[in-house]
Amino acid sequence: MATTLTLHPDRALPADPTVRALARTLYAQTASLPLVGMHGHVEAQALADDAPFGDPASLLVTPDHYVTRMLYSQGVAPHRLGVGEPAAGPRDIWRTFCEHWHLFRGTPSRYWLEHELVEVFGVTTVPSAQTADTLYDQIAAVLDDPAFRPRTLLDRFHIELIATTDAATSPLDHHAKLAADGFGERVVPTFRPDAVTHPARSSWAADVAELGRVAGVDTGDYAGYLEALRRRRAAFVEAGALATDHGHLSADTTPLNPDEAARIYRDARNGATAGADAFSGHMLHVMAGMSAQDGLVMQLHPGVLRDHHRAAAAAYGPDRGWDIPVGTEFTRSLRPLLDDFGMHPGFRLILFTVDETSYSRELAPLAGVYPSVRLGAPWWFLDSPHAMRRFREAATETAGFYNTSGFVDDTRAYASIPARHDLSRRIDAGYLATLVAEHRLSEEEAAQTAVDLAYHLPKLAYARRSA
Amino acid sequence: MATTLTLHPDRALPADPTVRALARTLYAQTASLPLVGMHGHVEAQALADDAPFGDPASLLVTPDHYVTRMLYSQGVAPHRLGVGEPAAGPRDIWRTFCEHWHLFRGTPSRYWLEHELVEVFGVTTVPSAQTADTLYDQIAAVLDDPAFRPRTLLDRFHIELIATTDAATSPLDHHAKLAADGFGERVVPTFRPDAVTHPARSSWAADVAELGRVAGVDTGDYAGYLEALRRRRAAFVEAGALATDHGHLSADTTPLNPDEAARIYRDARNGATAGADAFSGHMLHVMAGMSAQDGLVMQLHPGVLRDHHRAAAAAYGPDRGWDIPVGTEFTRSLRPLLDDFGMHPGFRLILFTVDETSYSRELAPLAGVYPSVRLGAPWWFLDSPHAMRRFREAATETAGFYNTSGFVDDTRAYASIPARHDLSRRIDAGYLATLVAEHRLSEEEAAQTAVDLAYHLPKLAYARRSA
Amino acid sequence: MATTLTLHPDRALPADPTVRALARTLYAQTASLPLVGMHGHVEAQALADDAPFGDPASLLVTPDHYVTRMLYSQGVAPHRLGVGEPAAGPRDIWRTFCEHWHLFRGTPSRYWLEHELVEVFGVTTVPSAQTADTLYDQIAAVLDDPAFRPRTLLDRFHIELIATTDAATSPLDHHAKLAADGFGERVVPTFRPDAVTHPARSSWAADVAELGRVAGVDTGDYAGYLEALRRRRAAFVEAGALATDHGHLSADTTPLNPDEAARIYRDARNGATAGADAFSGHMLHVMAGMSAQDGLVMQLHPGVLRDHHRAAAAAYGPDRGWDIPVGTEFTRSLRPLLDDFGMHPGFRLILFTVDETSYSRELAPLAGVYPSVRLGAPWWFLDSPHAMRRFREAATETAGFYNTSGFVDDTRAYASIPARHDLSRRIDAGYLATLVAEHRLSEEEAAQTAVDLAYHLPKLAYARRSA
Repeated sequence: MATTLTLHPDRALPADPTVRALARTLYAQTASLPLVGMHGHVEAQALADDAPFGDPASLLVTPDHYVTRMLYSQGVAPHRLGVGEPAAGPRDIWRTFCEHWHLFRGTPSRYWLEHELVEVFGVTTVPSAQTADTLYDQIAAVLDDPAFRPRTLLDRFHIELIATTDAATSPLDHHAKLAADGFGERVVPTFRPDAVTHPARSSWAADVAELGRVAGVDTGDYAGYLEALRRRRAAFVEAGALATDHGHLSADTTPLNPDEAARIYRDARNGATAGADAFSGHMLHVMAGMSAQDGLVMQLHPGVLRDHHRAAAAAYGPDRGWDIPVGTEFTRSLRPLLDDFGMHPGFRLILFTVDETSYSRELAPLAGVYPSVRLGAPWWFLDSPHAMRRFREAATETAGFYNTSGFVDDTRAYASIPARHDLSRRIDAGYLATLVAEHRLSEEEAAQTAVDLAYHLPKLAYARRSA
Repeated sequence: MATTLTLHPDRALPADPTVRALARTLYAQTASLPLVGMHGHVEAQALADDAPFGDPASLLVTPDHYVTRMLYSQGVAPHRLGVGEPAAGPRDIWRTFCEHWHLFRGTPSRYWLEHELVEVFGVTTVPSAQTADTLYDQIAAVLDDPAFRPRTLLDRFHIELIATTDAATSPLDHHAKLAADGFGERVVPTFRPDAVTHPARSSWAADVAELGRVAGVDTGDYAGYLEALRRRRAAFVEAGALATDHGHLSADTTPLNPDEAARIYRDARNGATAGADAFSGHMLHVMAGMSAQDGLVMQLHPGVLRDHHRAAAAAYGPDRGWDIPVGTEFTRSLRPLLDDFGMHPGFRLILFTVDETSYSRELAPLAGVYPSVRLGAPWWFLDSPHAMRRFREAATETAGFYNTSGFVDDTRAYASIPARHDLSRRIDAGYLATLVAEHRLSEEEAAQTAVDLAYHLPKLAYARRSA
Repeated sequence: MATTLTLHPDRALPADPTVRALARTLYAQTASLPLVGMHGHVEAQALADDAPFGDPASLLVTPDHYVTRMLYSQGVAPHRLGVGEPAAGPRDIWRTFCEHWHLFRGTPSRYWLEHELVEVFGVTTVPSAQTADTLYDQIAAVLDDPAFRPRTLLDRFHIELIATTDAATSPLDHHAKLAADGFGERVVPTFRPDAVTHPARSSWAADVAELGRVAGVDTGDYAGYLEALRRRRAAFVEAGALATDHGHLSADTTPLNPDEAARIYRDARNGATAGADAFSGHMLHVMAGMSAQDGLVMQLHPGVLRDHHRAAAAAYGPDRGWDIPVGTEFTRSLRPLLDDFGMHPGFRLILFTVDETSYSRELAPLAGVYPSVRLGAPWWFLDSPHAMRRFREAATETAGFYNTSGFVDDTRAYASIPARHDLSRRIDAGYLATLVAEHRLSEEEAAQTAVDLAYHLPKLAYARRSA
């Protein structure tokens, strides 16, 4: 096996020479555009504290559930990756990862990791059992470099705007510090109320109490709960937030009448969760109404069954790779919400899915008629070369390009952000190049569209709305 | 931006040079074949009266829901497109359309419109805010030309056979006039009974009464209703009809026992719609039985939720772009119908879908074994380059080519008919060329298949059956 | 039409010259690898008796439901293909088949048949009405050749290991004979208990009684039934079995509590089938538990509605082409089973589907995290060039290559086995070549992966587990 690691300039561009030449030209016009990352999961604290990153394993392996799940799937025990006890040491984790490098063939993790290793850490050797220790030392040295701090990387990565994801109960103190340090416009919070809109979750009552405490409102009844949400949204707006984010198992948005909602709320506070799912759907409708008022862009990510393996969830906690998609219905589910707010000039809804079947059948038709709706970038399991291409092929013919949000990454792996944007720009360049090669689009139009998808559309899609 | 509008001879053919050369040869053999349009929505009256078309906006923008929905989706108010009040004037509508030309990048509307502008109207300039007025005048001048009348265009468009879609209650007077003028074999009606088979619709009782009036049968009870349907079908057969057409939300075809059907019918006449959906499904089974008798080919188009936004539907009426697909089940739903008529030599069922997931999973397996079943062309949102290609790739390996109906357009936009057939022929040529390039088919076979798909198969699929 | 039949060396490889050259090199490294056929339906008796095959029609047409269903779909009556009475004679069947050769354009049957005709039978002429008789005589002569016996073909086809599919009640006498003749390691049984795990089937009570008889256990109650299954599994293990196989309509695996299961079992023995579907799902959970104990690899093939046309099923029996897929849910359905056994080191589950929508949404995410789960090869209607390519494109980015089982054929058409493996190797070579051409994989890695997919992974996936 070859051991030299390099990034080919034409990687992830189409193989056909004519199309590739066109794609290369289009990509060149987007390659150095600033990054707009409106759906990130980087911790605000990391940027507020600007502390050095840890070791190679705790930066690149242990927290990346794309990486750990692949290794689990081939029999690597979680604790060998630092997940659960007895946790292996960082160098052992790194060795285990490098020994299994072949498992990532054909995956986007391979693409992202290669990009990071070469571009961010200056690695020139393919990971393997033989090279693991050398690579570990090389990456560790980079991590020790004062130039490799989170805020410095904002510039190096060319990040113009990055959003964090923050609980509704967040005191937003890290964002206050960032604002005080002059990063308030560049690092913005996102309002994520899932913990307080799903009464079926075991921590719901505590989270709702905390919501009241932070908002300074008594959440003992439904009216207080709504008022607390309104105040927290206002605090997020004040702190620069542009959007909300909602993760639900179903896309149901059926509103309850207020008395019914108040009753379920009261019962849930007393530990009775009958009606909890209906309440969650109802709250999407309520949140849409508040978005139409305060102009926060609403993001919806339905269709993932969390913690599929209950024992693994109990042992290792959430976000460890045990989340599995389910089929997701949008047309009927979103109808109540869109009936009421879909035509509202102050409302914007960005839809994500891990169920590709909805692209041509439901999502593109919805985004292709409702002025409030945009299609988010291919999400999670679909944030990959073939899947991104399928998204464009399935969505464009009905929704066009301009009803999509452009690329947003969705990662907690800070060092992978440039790789993710780069891959997206290459795939879009390849798709546009095919349209040009098939004489369905002029080169000038394709170039303009490529720049719009990479930069202007995300900014437009997430611009706060005013009614 | 380039401003010259031309049609590249290789447009919509595959980019790979080897495949393109093969595709070009195949396309050349179908490009000038006559058009067979067995699923059209052109108004019979337009061809009966042969009156001049109106202005550019009322021909090309206002009635085309593909165009208007895309413009709504980017915030253009319907009345600015002539939909709802206060309706803009035609020149303003045209300007609004031209200003938003970029929205259609990557859509089939762009392909169809370019084709129409160049081939039908002789336009040589890309639509834009700057060129809107010039184009308007140029198109208006063509529309004033006596050579641009509906009947003349039948020849110019090389239309050998076109079907209109007509309510079960239609007096068929326009078709009588067409027959009297010698167009009876060329323009045929299609029997569409949806208005009288869905008791849940608000106008159902009135439509059923009208059905009785036109048929000369008392539809006061279920037996009379069935007899009226039989008579109207006979009248359509007499007027040259080859097919029926059925739009249902679900593909359910479960028959009711006659007493139950009669009871639901009676209740529905009295305004009680319990059982209405079951009745609709039952009526598909009944219609299949009548088709097996009278030989009318049965077309089924399920899976579209009409008027998704209720306020828009109330304000602007049906067919304005607010229809959204839903997931559609075929295997279980069609079983009762196919159990009873699927092997009947007098029966033919052509299936359409806007849910692509059923191509490889349900539709191709059904068409690949039942002698009565054919797969219709990719429909509505799927009548587009990528989606047509996906149809062939998903359906052919199980259903082959000869269980598909060949191309049928599905449009009320008369001037777009040649563009739609042309695009389909190009996509099929490209698909066949790929099979040849991959040595899965000989060039001779591919050429024969291309001609069959473009011309012979639609004629065969819609040939009236005899039991 | 050209009449010379040849196999192009580059058939089914991608058209693009760069990609094709890479694919050709990759394919060359797998083309002559031994075949591992772990999911076959060749009859054990054929290999035990080693009797000559019959005539061309009874070898190549009548038993191949891919072939007969396509001919039915175009109006050929089953009896003309030897299915049902009055059965046509073999030469007439063969003529009917050859006359309809064009129907197979674009299908995998065409690919397999061409391969068999040329490689196995030395045919050099395209089938047609004109050539039918000559081909019949030529193939019949080959079939008469003593070298064309089942066991000789094992060598000629380069089959290293082939599994048959055997009822839980099978006495395994054919395998005993094979073992006695030295073929015990090469031809192994597979434990298929469907007949005794679906109480809704009309023959269930009789099959359960037979199970008891063969196992030497009284299956009069549920405990005896479980014990009989355990003993039969042990007998299969003894006879060399590596796997079990389960065909269910749904993938439900919800366990019942033992009392409930025992009650349904008792009722079903008395002819009451309430709870039968729940019992079937429960038995998947039970079978998984037994697999975790005895190490037999568990194969699950859900989602096919058998005998869609009831009259055809009654007239012609099962497996005649009237089976149609349905949408299939995996994420929720498999959760109970995977919760209990998904992390068990002694358990292996190989999942097949005819519902492609689950590849990226459910199957790849499941296989990409559970160490016990592998994705089986594209199955049945999806065992075809485009569908195999779609499988790789949809599954690889989340599951990688090493969570797939590699190719397993699924056929009762013995002579088609080499063709099926050959096609799969070509498609995988093409897919890997695309990754190389797009600089997402090195040539060395691609070559290693191609060999793994063709040979090593099937052996690994079906290696019996030890807990």
